[in-house]
Amino acid sequence: GAGADSDLYINQAIVFIEDAIQYRSINHRVDSKSLWLYRWYYSRTCQWILSLTITVILALAFIEEPSSLTVTSDVRYRLPAWNPPCGLTESIELLCFLVFVVDVSVKSYLIGWKEFWKNKWLMAYILTLIVSLADWIVSLSFFCRESVRIRRILRPFFLLQNSSMMKKTLKSINSTLPEMASVVLLLAVHLSLFTMFAMLLFARTKDNQQDKEWVVYFRNLPDALTSLLVLLTTANNPDVMIPAYSKNRAYSIFFILFTVLGNLFLMNLLTAIIYNQFRGYLLKSVQSSLFRRRLGIRAAFEVLSSLKETPASAQQSCVSVGALLQVLQKAEMDSRCKQAIMRSLKMCSCDQLSAAQFQKLFEELDKDAIKQHPPSPEYQSHFMQKMQFAFGHPYFGYLGNVVALANIISICVVLVMDADKQPSERDDFFLGAINCFFILYYLLEMLLKILAMGLKRYLSYPSNRFDGLLTVILLILEIATFAVYGFPHPGWRPEFMGLLSLWDMVRLVNMLIVFRFLRIIPNMKFMALVVTTLLDLVKNLRAFAGLLVVVFYAFAITGIMLFKGAVVPLGNTRYSNFLQGAQKNSKAEVTGSCVPFSIKKVVVLYFKEKNVISWCSAHFQAEVIYCPLCVLSVHLICRWAKIYFVAWWLISSVIWVNIFVALLLENFIHKWDRRCQRESLSDIEYQRTVELMFRDVLEEPTEEELMEKLHQHPHLQLCR
Amino acid sequence: GAGADSDLYINQAIVFIEDAIQYRSINHRVDSKSLWLYRWYYSRTCQWILSLTITVILALAFIEEPSSLTVTSDVRYRLPAWNPPCGLTESIELLCFLVFVVDVSVKSYLIGWKEFWKNKWLMAYILTLIVSLADWIVSLSFFCRESVRIRRILRPFFLLQNSSMMKKTLKSINSTLPEMASVVLLLAVHLSLFTMFAMLLFARTKDNQQDKEWVVYFRNLPDALTSLLVLLTTANNPDVMIPAYSKNRAYSIFFILFTVLGNLFLMNLLTAIIYNQFRGYLLKSVQSSLFRRRLGIRAAFEVLSSLKETPASAQQSCVSVGALLQVLQKAEMDSRCKQAIMRSLKMCSCDQLSAAQFQKLFEELDKDAIKQHPPSPEYQSHFMQKMQFAFGHPYFGYLGNVVALANIISICVVLVMDADKQPSERDDFFLGAINCFFILYYLLEMLLKILAMGLKRYLSYPSNRFDGLLTVILLILEIATFAVYGFPHPGWRPEFMGLLSLWDMVRLVNMLIVFRFLRIIPNMKFMALVVTTLLDLVKNLRAFAGLLVVVFYAFAITGIMLFKGAVVPLGNTRYSNFLQGAQKNSKAEVTGSCVPFSIKKVVVLYFKEKNVISWCSAHFQAEVIYCPLCVLSVHLICRWAKIYFVAWWLISSVIWVNIFVALLLENFIHKWDRRCQRESLSDIEYQRTVELMFRDVLEEPTEEELMEKLHQHPHLQLCR
Repeated sequence: GAGADSDLYINQAIVFIEDAIQYRSINHRVDSKSLWLYRWYYSRTCQWILSLTITVILALAFIEEPSSLTVTSDVRYRLPAWNPPCGLTESIELLCFLVFVVDVSVKSYLIGWKEFWKNKWLMAYILTLIVSLADWIVSLSFFCRESVRIRRILRPFFLLQNSSMMKKTLKSINSTLPEMASVVLLLAVHLSLFTMFAMLLFARTKDNQQDKEWVVYFRNLPDALTSLLVLLTTANNPDVMIPAYSKNRAYSIFFILFTVLGNLFLMNLLTAIIYNQFRGYLLKSVQSSLFRRRLGIRAAFEVLSSLKETPASAQQSCVSVGALLQVLQKAEMDSRCKQAIMRSLKMCSCDQLSAAQFQKLFEELDKDAIKQHPPSPEYQSHFMQKMQFAFGHPYFGYLGNVVALANIISICVVLVMDADKQPSERDDFFLGAINCFFILYYLLEMLLKILAMGLKRYLSYPSNRFDGLLTVILLILEIATFAVYGFPHPGWRPEFMGLLSLWDMVRLVNMLIVFRFLRIIPNMKFMALVVTTLLDLVKNLRAFAGLLVVVFYAFAITGIMLFKGAVVPLGNTRYSNFLQGAQKNSKAEVTGSCVPFSIKKVVVLYFKEKNVISWCSAHFQAEVIYCPLCVLSVHLICRWAKIYFVAWWLISSVIWVNIFVALLLENFIHKWDRRCQRESLSDIEYQRTVELMFRDVLEEPTEEELMEKLHQHPHLQLCR
Repeated sequence: GAGADSDLYINQAIVFIEDAIQYRSINHRVDSKSLWLYRWYYSRTCQWILSLTITVILALAFIEEPSSLTVTSDVRYRLPAWNPPCGLTESIELLCFLVFVVDVSVKSYLIGWKEFWKNKWLMAYILTLIVSLADWIVSLSFFCRESVRIRRILRPFFLLQNSSMMKKTLKSINSTLPEMASVVLLLAVHLSLFTMFAMLLFARTKDNQQDKEWVVYFRNLPDALTSLLVLLTTANNPDVMIPAYSKNRAYSIFFILFTVLGNLFLMNLLTAIIYNQFRGYLLKSVQSSLFRRRLGIRAAFEVLSSLKETPASAQQSCVSVGALLQVLQKAEMDSRCKQAIMRSLKMCSCDQLSAAQFQKLFEELDKDAIKQHPPSPEYQSHFMQKMQFAFGHPYFGYLGNVVALANIISICVVLVMDADKQPSERDDFFLGAINCFFILYYLLEMLLKILAMGLKRYLSYPSNRFDGLLTVILLILEIATFAVYGFPHPGWRPEFMGLLSLWDMVRLVNMLIVFRFLRIIPNMKFMALVVTTLLDLVKNLRAFAGLLVVVFYAFAITGIMLFKGAVVPLGNTRYSNFLQGAQKNSKAEVTGSCVPFSIKKVVVLYFKEKNVISWCSAHFQAEVIYCPLCVLSVHLICRWAKIYFVAWWLISSVIWVNIFVALLLENFIHKWDRRCQRESLSDIEYQRTVELMFRDVLEEPTEEELMEKLHQHPHLQLCR
């Protein structure tokens, strides 16, 4: 009937508008039941459950068997980690898999079978699930004693497929690969030619005294290659040169040429190439988001316009205001936007909306949310007004900064004076008294500011929230200190009591004070610019961070599997003996197992270039740092370790860092240009998003593009 | 008289056109004598003498007293360097100073007194000369035994002031300084806050076992600051974290935060800022060069037009062709350009040239020199024609590449097989025979190519020149080997004879073969792009390289002065004892003099970040690398060394490398855009210069701008 039809149209419009708000694609089924399922699937609860499931399955690695989640990382001292009984993690895993099965089925159903066969991500999702479940069954049938668990390496895929931004970013990185591969090939040619040169230059001679360079760095092809590869990371930069350089200064020319060509030219060329490829990346992705939004709104308009009973009356299709109001009430969207749209709907006196008017209404979604601070309270008494003026004035804030600086300096002075004192000699009175005074000042400052601005206005500034929170914590800590240890007096050096010693309490207070000092940042113009750039960058980098987690996780799991059992806790004496042996590089002790310095170099390479360091890798570090010190099947591991670490270095350090630099350049240059443009508007606080940053550069999609796309919709049949 | 006047005008026009060709400023005196002096000053001989003088005065440091220009860099083995007698270097210096005095007087005279007082560079030049001469007199009066020689540090100024590009670049860097200073300030705040945090976090505890981190890295404020500064360079990246990390994994969060904020964000922000500032730098400098050229030509036009006897006849001023021909014949310019201009002058039938026509004639100067290869010889015989087709075909070149690759692989195989053999066990027959065969092939290839292309055409390709030269050298080496050692046969292992041993000869041949393999580069498209980008960059970087030489020289001289006498050659036993002591980090042995690890770290920092490494610094390295091993007044030196090395790191590594990256980005992105534009024209070889790269972006200066600038000329009075 017409009523059911009109209900369907209204529901379709609601879903399309929600799609537009979330920048989602509108290519899904549009019958009543599917719409209900779709709204349910994209409801907050469902999406939250999905995210939780992904987090849980990724976090499982921290408690699963070859985990090293212990306080100390030192294999000699650490206790065996807790080992969950067989079946515990496996049953959690099964639950997660079930959620994923539901997820993939709903997703596949919603996009329809035709689209499903075109969607490689969904197919890969199903394949991953099948492999994981098979592996899970194998695992259970071996009572968790099997050694290789493929499904662990596959886990990050679940994170990857759930984020459209990450998929887009991956695609973008993928398109840069040919150029990157060219440079990496160039690097490989550079490396191999120089290796041959080095082997000819630093060949073995008859005089054993003279060929130190050969013995240590260029003994054979793999050694020479490793030496130069590590030189490319600058990890062994002076060392590798010194034996040859002591013999003849001219040998340094070889290393200088290698470093300048490889490090200065080729490595930076990689940066240039990646930057060149990513230059338009942000803009392009924002442009496609805008297209999705306009498309969703246009689709809503089209379905609402077919709702109208009298299509013949007007040549142009239009939408009645009533239907739109109905849709707006049911759609889930930011309440500020909803109210603004309602308001403009009421102000517009017309009864029917054309497509352009309809689109214009929803432009509210794209607008900056200009943050308005609540007004200050208005005091009646003259005295209070004066107080308000004095303590609401920026100078009062500057005074607070000066006091915080004084506090920092006093802590610094005490630290320098106490640097070499024994803990028992330390007199905590001075610092205690000083901190007490300063914290009282901070409290007073907070209260006076609240008095002047009113609580609401005070809390509406992020800097005040930061300030106030830290002041309250400091106050609580100080009160707790006095409650447990009494008031400070000369020679105040009480014994350990309660949860923390007095010394720890004082340290904690000091650290918080240092942290609180960061409040000066917004007061310095350039710093504020830098900090907002960084914050923007963090927002835009979420997809990259996700990809990084994926890569780190896969590397960590692979590493755990490869190097399992390589680290055997040795007794202290044996350990230190071995350490001395390794230090002396004495061949006699070490030959036959593993050339320790070479793997040590690789490990150094790993750490050195690990500017990007994560908990995951830190978790895994401990396993590897003692590798040169272990004696068990080290030789075999060394070869694997080399390949593993070189791959790690290439991906995490070279490629990821370069992509990061490219994005930072892009962001900073945009921001900088903009800053110069609207210097005057800088007082207004914008809640900036990536979309807003590019707004004046974006192109609006044309009517034809939108309609063509709409007509290609696999499930929606438009009347005209 | 009129004749003298007309001679003067002709001479002025000649000088202005030469100024335009060399992109020089035209603001100099224009009377007859000054013009003669000007042409003499800018003649090749004079400029060559000036450059030679600058080179000589800079090179003096290598033979002056605290020089360490010896073969080995090891203080234990090296012989005392040759010490020139007092007065030798001093008299050379005096000669140089005299040349500089002449230079500065001529320059000052030529620009005129009014301009002189505005020119700060000239004033500084005179001041430097006065100080240097005063220091020279002091030096001689002490019979060369004075310890501080200020004039040495001032020497690089002579290099600096002689290059207008370097002065321009310095100005450009200067304008970036405020932003750079902001980031460096931010870095300093970052560093100091984290240092306080670290000192509170890793404080001394009662348990001596537990505070390894405090003992080694955070003992007091300077130590903590150094540890974190070095961490910022990633030189001590894993080490500084390990003691705390072994105690509790959570401590790694501190180091991760520090590294991510400092290294990943702030350091890259510096790159972004410098890139942002330098984005327009190349374009702007090329634009101002263009302006100078147009101005010079316009000035020539104006003086030539006032030469005409009948000014009233035409409303527009114009120049007679005869006068221009006269000027062209006397002006020094590229013969190709001169001929092209003459040709178009003859083709233009008119007798008088307007300003626009005049300007257009000289556009020949801006044009690409399209390189035309001489034609191949035309053979009569059918057989020769077939030969020519076969060996002139690109496939023959590819075959040559394949053979070169095979040669490389064979050398590689022999190297791998011989890697661990004693020199006495090695059998050189295989390699000798193989190389003999390959060299014969190379010779044949060269001859056949010459046959097919003709000698002239063959030599017109740079790749062929490279190839041919190496082939000839290889042939000579091979013939020399056979002449001295006879033909190779199994068990061919002759004794040392002649200048080089057989083994050295073979190594040299192999190295040349590896080097010859570089001929494949132009055959790979992407590699060719990269290599041409790099070559372009090298051209554009001359000014930066000059500045780098200035900075390195100043640092090296300062370092030599600061650390003179710090390195005392110790006996072998004592040295190794000390080395062991330093390795164990045993406090007992070292306390009181200098904490060796801290300076070692700074030295490592110095080497590590010295991606930019130069002969100068290499020259100086030797002095410092053994510093931790010396015992003489090390403590004092340590403090100085820290400041010195941190300054060195900031300037050479952080700032210079970032400027380099910025320029590379700029160049590469321009080149890349251009490549996509004129993919079709890629067959034609251009002799590219910076000016040409930007040609389609440059703006032509307008007539008004040119005339305004001409009227501001301090010495030229135009009639109108």
